[in-house]
Amino acid sequence: MKVFTHLDDNGAANMVDVSAKEPTLREAIAEGRITMSSNAATAIREQLVVKGDVLAVARVAGIMAAKNTSLNIPLCHPLKLSSVTLDLFVEEDFVAVRGTVRAFDVTGVEMEALNAVSVALLSVYDMVKSIDRGMTIGGIALVSKLGGRSGAWRANHGQ
Amino acid sequence: MKVFTHLDDNGAANMVDVSAKEPTLREAIAEGRITMSSNAATAIREQLVVKGDVLAVARVAGIMAAKNTSLNIPLCHPLKLSSVTLDLFVEEDFVAVRGTVRAFDVTGVEMEALNAVSVALLSVYDMVKSIDRGMTIGGIALVSKLGGRSGAWRANHGQ
Amino acid sequence: MKVFTHLDDNGAANMVDVSAKEPTLREAIAEGRITMSSNAATAIREQLVVKGDVLAVARVAGIMAAKNTSLNIPLCHPLKLSSVTLDLFVEEDFVAVRGTVRAFDVTGVEMEALNAVSVALLSVYDMVKSIDRGMTIGGIALVSKLGGRSGAWRANHGQ
Amino acid sequence: MKVFTHLDDNGAANMVDVSAKEPTLREAIAEGRITMSSNAATAIREQLVVKGDVLAVARVAGIMAAKNTSLNIPLCHPLKLSSVTLDLFVEEDFVAVRGTVRAFDVTGVEMEALNAVSVALLSVYDMVKSIDRGMTIGGIALVSKLGGRSGAWRANHGQ
Amino acid sequence: MKVFTHLDDNGAANMVDVSAKEPTLREAIAEGRITMSSNAATAIREQLVVKGDVLAVARVAGIMAAKNTSLNIPLCHPLKLSSVTLDLFVEEDFVAVRGTVRAFDVTGVEMEALNAVSVALLSVYDMVKSIDRGMTIGGIALVSKLGGRSGAWRANHGQ
Amino acid sequence: MKVFTHLDDNGAANMVDVSAKEPTLREAIAEGRITMSSNAATAIREQLVVKGDVLAVARVAGIMAAKNTSLNIPLCHPLKLSSVTLDLFVEEDFVAVRGTVRAFDVTGVEMEALNAVSVALLSVYDMVKSIDRGMTIGGIALVSKLGGRSGAWRANHGQ
Repeated sequence: MKVFTHLDDNGAANMVDVSAKEPTLREAIAEGRITMSSNAATAIREQLVVKGDVLAVARVAGIMAAKNTSLNIPLCHPLKLSSVTLDLFVEEDFVAVRGTVRAFDVTGVEMEALNAVSVALLSVYDMVKSIDRGMTIGGIALVSKLGGRSGAWRANHGQ
Repeated sequence: MKVFTHLDDNGAANMVDVSAKEPTLREAIAEGRITMSSNAATAIREQLVVKGDVLAVARVAGIMAAKNTSLNIPLCHPLKLSSVTLDLFVEEDFVAVRGTVRAFDVTGVEMEALNAVSVALLSVYDMVKSIDRGMTIGGIALVSKLGGRSGAWRANHGQ
Repeated sequence: MKVFTHLDDNGAANMVDVSAKEPTLREAIAEGRITMSSNAATAIREQLVVKGDVLAVARVAGIMAAKNTSLNIPLCHPLKLSSVTLDLFVEEDFVAVRGTVRAFDVTGVEMEALNAVSVALLSVYDMVKSIDRGMTIGGIALVSKLGGRSGAWRANHGQ
Repeated sequence: MKVFTHLDDNGAANMVDVSAKEPTLREAIAEGRITMSSNAATAIREQLVVKGDVLAVARVAGIMAAKNTSLNIPLCHPLKLSSVTLDLFVEEDFVAVRGTVRAFDVTGVEMEALNAVSVALLSVYDMVKSIDRGMTIGGIALVSKLGGRSGAWRANHGQ
Repeated sequence: MKVFTHLDDNGAANMVDVSAKEPTLREAIAEGRITMSSNAATAIREQLVVKGDVLAVARVAGIMAAKNTSLNIPLCHPLKLSSVTLDLFVEEDFVAVRGTVRAFDVTGVEMEALNAVSVALLSVYDMVKSIDRGMTIGGIALVSKLGGRSGAWRANHGQ
Repeated sequence: MKVFTHLDDNGAANMVDVSAKEPTLREAIAEGRITMSSNAATAIREQLVVKGDVLAVARVAGIMAAKNTSLNIPLCHPLKLSSVTLDLFVEEDFVAVRGTVRAFDVTGVEMEALNAVSVALLSVYDMVKSIDRGMTIGGIALVSKLGGRSGAWRANHGQ
């Protein structure tokens, strides 16, 4: 069984040493969704026709969250992100978010992509909760990653 | 169909006016889980016996996230939280998080509870990803809320 | 000549004591504009027809900035804002921003309104600078304030 | 007409991809001013003789703001700043701020310089507003930039 | 032996519940010092004659730190501070800092006063380290507190 | 006598220019302690047997503080930290903290190590203050540094 890279021999949490690693181009894609009543999804869609602020606000929130990741996730290394892209899709009874993050750096950007998706979904919840408090956020998972010593990885579950 | 309280008549996002509301005691409970291989769950549990840092780090991350909510969710009001409690449970193939937040204030604390749960789960992902990259975060939902004009609310889906 | 309330008798900066003040409803309205080529303003306007993200991003940035004011302006008191509204107008050769902030608190919200306007304008600059680097931000001023011991105030210069 | 580099083909805001760019030395100089009654300017100047805290506080605020730029301006890339210098001048009826920022990085530092100037001016407003609420912040513009693919640029309007 | 108020029965950290407490006026005074070579202290003092920026920067850093306390100390409640005052004294071979914080709130402001002093001292270290790397920060302690259920408290060791 | 590198010829604070410096591997080790009644130290130790959250929370707080250093210490450059390790020791009547920080960068990481130690100690204070308000934080000093133009340095006082 593999060991936790964030814990030393005594089980104490630390930010692992990456000082010997060479920077390479990293990419991570993550996804997630917020399930809601068709009522709520319709409201977002119709709003979309007028000006689209619900999705625009969620997208901005997710992009800013990607940049804040190391300030919120305790053992994440600070990274200099090269790009953050968030795509949002309004479906029959859910909103899906896909986030793509790139960096030329020594650690991967999985957490940045996952955090961007997560905060975008929470922002949708915040704006739509007056219509539907029973929404559920789920399916937050890594879709793929590129770069770094462990190389390419792709999820085999059909999210 | 209800309207979005965060959008004005032109669909522009704004932080809604709560200046006329009286403060009352608010409580929100939220839940979520991160599903993983039994391998990963076992590693967390055995670590737990030694010192438990994975869960301790995730708990601290979630508590700090509750306090950061209005800085990360664009249209959330800043609140003075009275308490934040996070409970984490390691099961056969998932870790569950339940967050309870209270405030004596003019808006509800749902977003704070949901954000705390979400960041705690992301922190678990971060610490365990060297063992299992295919973990999925899901089931993030409000369990119940108390206080405020809309009063008590309880989820009827069996999370 | 009045004295600086932020400086003690030795000229040292401090956060002035407001512990004896009663909370009242406060409001501040501030304005500002970013002047640009008609080329750039047209590009924003036409973008507006499609989805309006330039203005949406600037509005979100300004709202979040209002909440961050006491973290960025050294001697500002932390406040619990009740509402933040930002209106943006695209004119022939400028974009105007008007910000309205309310709080039920012991100090005024002028800095929050001014900061919201300022950050919204900087965000417009950031998004439009690939078209026009010579844009100028100006006219950032308080339009009016309500509440507090000093009472109502209204600018008499025709901004 | 040039296109917005921050918006994709659907008009959605994103943090543009700079992962293929080589770092070069970047510099940006920005300026701005806050116009006030001669009464207020005199008060700052006389304070200056004693200990100068108004200008010192504004300078510190601006330097910290330069470092916070990517946390406050939604689509700005995080940068590792090499230097930040702020010069403040008290004139007859205004205070002028000039900010110079350098970085060895893949994107320009215009936003950092503009944000530093803007926050320094807002800090002056905050400290002097008890004397003069009618102050106006303006003339915030880029003076020059060096480095990067687009090369050197200099404003031709006599700010 | 008293129990830790921040730990529940299982030893898990939480932000303790203060929702039932009435706000009262709170005050905390803390102190600390940074010991250095007389060379370094002289340099600060002589700098002081010109413009005093070392002490001004440290004071601003400490005031901003007081406001950031709940973002940096995991289990601290967010508080609305009423005032923050920092006094700095340059002695023969040390700089002393005394911080006074007030709030009308439900928890004490000890951590805010201690954090303000600590960050002010670290800022002095940062600015003076090119002269003396061997400086030591110490004597950071609470001098007195007022307000709250536990009432007044005064340190009996002669700091 | 050496000059302050953070102050220009007029004594104004600035973030010094490091744009011409080559990145090298940097390391800094800092130490500090919080002295307390043996009662309090025993309580931490016994808690440790159960789950150790006091030390775990303090460790997380210190690691996050290392990453926040340039946001809290005004003239610190933003750095991309490669690793942060915090060791905590509970002794008869004090808790000692030792922090080790590494970065491959153009400036040293002394402030990051000192800030990590300082915030970890403040967090211990916060969690233990209900038992002993008279605790004193001291002995915060640099133990050693490696890398950079000034090379290796080691404290000769027996902390």
